[in-house]
Amino acid sequence: MSKASLLRARMAERGLVHIMAAHSPLSAILAEEAGFDGLWASGFELSALYGLPDMSLTSMTQHLDMLRAIAGCSSLPIVADIDTGYGNAINVIHAIREYERAGAAAVVIEDKTFPKVTSLVAGGRQELVTIEEFQGKIAAAVASRQDPALLVIARTEALIAGLGEAEALKRAQAYVAAGADMILIHSKKKDPSEIESFARGWTGAVPLVVVPNAYPELDAERIRALGTIRMVIYGNYAIRAAVTAMQQAFRRIVADGGVQSVHKDMVPVEEIFRLQGMDRIKADEKRFLR
Amino acid sequence: MSKASLLRARMAERGLVHIMAAHSPLSAILAEEAGFDGLWASGFELSALYGLPDMSLTSMTQHLDMLRAIAGCSSLPIVADIDTGYGNAINVIHAIREYERAGAAAVVIEDKTFPKVTSLVAGGRQELVTIEEFQGKIAAAVASRQDPALLVIARTEALIAGLGEAEALKRAQAYVAAGADMILIHSKKKDPSEIESFARGWTGAVPLVVVPNAYPELDAERIRALGTIRMVIYGNYAIRAAVTAMQQAFRRIVADGGVQSVHKDMVPVEEIFRLQGMDRIKADEKRFLR
Amino acid sequence: MSKASLLRARMAERGLVHIMAAHSPLSAILAEEAGFDGLWASGFELSALYGLPDMSLTSMTQHLDMLRAIAGCSSLPIVADIDTGYGNAINVIHAIREYERAGAAAVVIEDKTFPKVTSLVAGGRQELVTIEEFQGKIAAAVASRQDPALLVIARTEALIAGLGEAEALKRAQAYVAAGADMILIHSKKKDPSEIESFARGWTGAVPLVVVPNAYPELDAERIRALGTIRMVIYGNYAIRAAVTAMQQAFRRIVADGGVQSVHKDMVPVEEIFRLQGMDRIKADEKRFLR
Amino acid sequence: MSKASLLRARMAERGLVHIMAAHSPLSAILAEEAGFDGLWASGFELSALYGLPDMSLTSMTQHLDMLRAIAGCSSLPIVADIDTGYGNAINVIHAIREYERAGAAAVVIEDKTFPKVTSLVAGGRQELVTIEEFQGKIAAAVASRQDPALLVIARTEALIAGLGEAEALKRAQAYVAAGADMILIHSKKKDPSEIESFARGWTGAVPLVVVPNAYPELDAERIRALGTIRMVIYGNYAIRAAVTAMQQAFRRIVADGGVQSVHKDMVPVEEIFRLQGMDRIKADEKRFLR
Repeated sequence: MSKASLLRARMAERGLVHIMAAHSPLSAILAEEAGFDGLWASGFELSALYGLPDMSLTSMTQHLDMLRAIAGCSSLPIVADIDTGYGNAINVIHAIREYERAGAAAVVIEDKTFPKVTSLVAGGRQELVTIEEFQGKIAAAVASRQDPALLVIARTEALIAGLGEAEALKRAQAYVAAGADMILIHSKKKDPSEIESFARGWTGAVPLVVVPNAYPELDAERIRALGTIRMVIYGNYAIRAAVTAMQQAFRRIVADGGVQSVHKDMVPVEEIFRLQGMDRIKADEKRFLR
Repeated sequence: MSKASLLRARMAERGLVHIMAAHSPLSAILAEEAGFDGLWASGFELSALYGLPDMSLTSMTQHLDMLRAIAGCSSLPIVADIDTGYGNAINVIHAIREYERAGAAAVVIEDKTFPKVTSLVAGGRQELVTIEEFQGKIAAAVASRQDPALLVIARTEALIAGLGEAEALKRAQAYVAAGADMILIHSKKKDPSEIESFARGWTGAVPLVVVPNAYPELDAERIRALGTIRMVIYGNYAIRAAVTAMQQAFRRIVADGGVQSVHKDMVPVEEIFRLQGMDRIKADEKRFLR
Repeated sequence: MSKASLLRARMAERGLVHIMAAHSPLSAILAEEAGFDGLWASGFELSALYGLPDMSLTSMTQHLDMLRAIAGCSSLPIVADIDTGYGNAINVIHAIREYERAGAAAVVIEDKTFPKVTSLVAGGRQELVTIEEFQGKIAAAVASRQDPALLVIARTEALIAGLGEAEALKRAQAYVAAGADMILIHSKKKDPSEIESFARGWTGAVPLVVVPNAYPELDAERIRALGTIRMVIYGNYAIRAAVTAMQQAFRRIVADGGVQSVHKDMVPVEEIFRLQGMDRIKADEKRFLR
Repeated sequence: MSKASLLRARMAERGLVHIMAAHSPLSAILAEEAGFDGLWASGFELSALYGLPDMSLTSMTQHLDMLRAIAGCSSLPIVADIDTGYGNAINVIHAIREYERAGAAAVVIEDKTFPKVTSLVAGGRQELVTIEEFQGKIAAAVASRQDPALLVIARTEALIAGLGEAEALKRAQAYVAAGADMILIHSKKKDPSEIESFARGWTGAVPLVVVPNAYPELDAERIRALGTIRMVIYGNYAIRAAVTAMQQAFRRIVADGGVQSVHKDMVPVEEIFRLQGMDRIKADEKRFLR
């Protein structure tokens, strides 16, 4: 069974799958051990790892390399964040082929224009592409997948662009008509009211995906109550946890003039060895080194 | 002034430089903000990030890509961990050219055989190459650098291989004779006695480097007291801190069925934006987007 | 002297520099041996090498990797084809930093919209960005270079987009006002009349660059006669020569059922050894392998 | 049917398969059009493309990237040249996983020590690893493949190392005992006598592979007459053809002071467009760009 089929089966079986953002094979291994259902190969987290703003600066090659490395270390299905598809529908076709070969079980494509700009810029390039153009991208993605189970998830930024719920619903329906398997609905409000209202108003033939970054109180219980959401993506928690811990450790080492106390609050190095699979290596050495 | 010259100047000026292992541009940015003097482009940490044991599995290309990305985000000098130099003296020549072009200010080459094996393997391939062979590697490195300030640091694993202090001192002297700018002395004892004894016995013409992973009580004060050590490398603390925090956060999200509580113990997402340089981007957008 | 300064010095000294497209370090070595003044890190040739249409499908990472490898094997200055700059002015800033670090002596940025489309598409997305937007990109490039000698070459596609000579001249002047060091003027006519007319009409403060692919009769003599052109780029000849030869060799091997005759019309393998620098390796082995 | 199964089926059906070395997706496309049965992802050709001697300098990452790009552009099965497996049996396990994921249908592992040295070096490091050590590598490869059809081909350099036919036969038998699916026998003699003698003496349970570089007169007819050879690899012809053509074209352009005459002896640029798949792109644009 392909990872894409596995992800579909898990959604059918569990009603809601929990997808954790991973910015490295190491964080993916930790997410799998913790019990998540899948991984979010997040553009935001990868940009952050590279010290770059999430402004279409990291390349598809860099994202594919990381996704491929993650796929090599985890049995979880991977949902790939491919932003706008790196250009137009032709770029989407190329991207789908490459992401599928790299091991993605699902892709999320958003209806913003390329490249991204920050919301501060006057003149509002938080514009979306036209519905017709984005339908072309979705149709191109669907037509290009080799595995028919690969999930093509359309993400609309209509709420974020301030276009309102009616436009968001209209776009979502149009994207389903073009072949989208799921709709990711995103909001920048500090509470989940927009998302919950959209979910209640959703009558489309496919389920929804949410990303409760700005509105963490949207937990599994509230999500399940809405009925139409089958996937929740936890978008930037791993990188924030890692930054918090490194910041504290670094400051303490500088303050202490050494590592004499900081090491006590960390996992021992043997835990890193375990995560690296040293036991398997030792067994392989015994078996194959002669 | 090149980064290599800068690193030499800092050692001369400060007596002892503190070098923090970085496995990504993000951790490098945090290390620079915390006040470290330089970065350790650690093979162990990179392997861990990729979920692989530190057994010569990650390639020079992967290491160079990461070092280059780090160099693009940090003004700190970078000390590159090039293991055994990826093969023989010919590989070292190629490596020196590539690491120097990628932005390294120093390289550390060790006298183990390639590839590494775990210490459990009978027959003890924790063997070292001959002194003559390793002198050839050091001489090749020194002859290949473009910037004469690039530090070529010879790391002897004689104590780790159980060959004793006399052999370690003999090897270190031979490596200095071949052109090494510094000697990194490593031990796997749980206390710094071996290192301190070696440092007291060291009469060579170049200063020493230590890596207090197994013996964290070897702090700056004790190091300075020894007189001959000019660089201390903190080898695996960033990755251990990050793992600790991600593990805890992941478990809590799974237990809570959402991110409703875990987010309170992390830096806010705005801190990630700050580290990504969003302010500079916004300024650039105002200046150049028309 | 930086490669960028070297390229400027060669233009000043020779009046006209000849730049050969290279799609690999090997073709770069051959171009240097043949006597060209510099290399064109061509997006078209790289796409062709990867079997992909030149439609913004190869990534900046792939292009940088190749340029960096070329820079490691050749002493010639490299002119980098960065298409539209991989997005908007923010992407240009990122690109300039990366291309400069990778070893580029000059960059060419064009005023098309991203991504490229073929000229067959109705609705004509052979559109150009506005003059103001492209001025922002040029200004961003100029402000971002570390080496003030790095040449920022603005390429206008105004003639190719069918906008006429007046618009082309107007755009070129505007790009110079924004800081461009040279103007690349391109035409898809089958003869050089458009180019020659533009060159005669050019009164700008900077010299011109031409790419005689569609109009090979525009040779050095005719170029020099125009007075305002300082750089000629030979855009797709290496890849066409290589394809021609491989096609013939492959067909003959299949027809012959072996390599018994085809090898006579090729350089011997010893010539490949020479190009790979085997003599230097042998000398290094004698010197450093012990 | 996997590519590995396809390759096995072709050998069974055709008796002898013809495998052409490809150093790029472009050369792979040309080889497929010419009618070869498969591709040789050659370490020698990749090194040459990168202007480096074939001395274990290009990394596994670089080789995998190229193999993956080739696999994306060709339907032919790919035989991967993985040299010594990048280290010991542990490295082989890692390599098999990565090459299989990248799209290899077969791998060739050789029994030389790592890293390679030129034959000029005194002390003869053209040494081979012990039979037992290499059996461990073969066993590790066989145990690590996901697709049981992946061909693990053991290459013995016994003849090249001057150890004679008896040692070569003994090694080959031992490698079959360890699980090798085929034996590649190589010679540096200028005629095929050693190879033909070995093939006549071969009584092993698996078929042979030959690489007629030094002895091009070993054509398909003579190979078939030997009875035990099922695969012939044409090892360095594409790169030699390409070099020959580029060298001539470059010299002529320099001599002519332009491209006014050289272009007549090359395929037109439209042929490059065809190889890049421009027709498919145009069709996709019509279908999906809106």
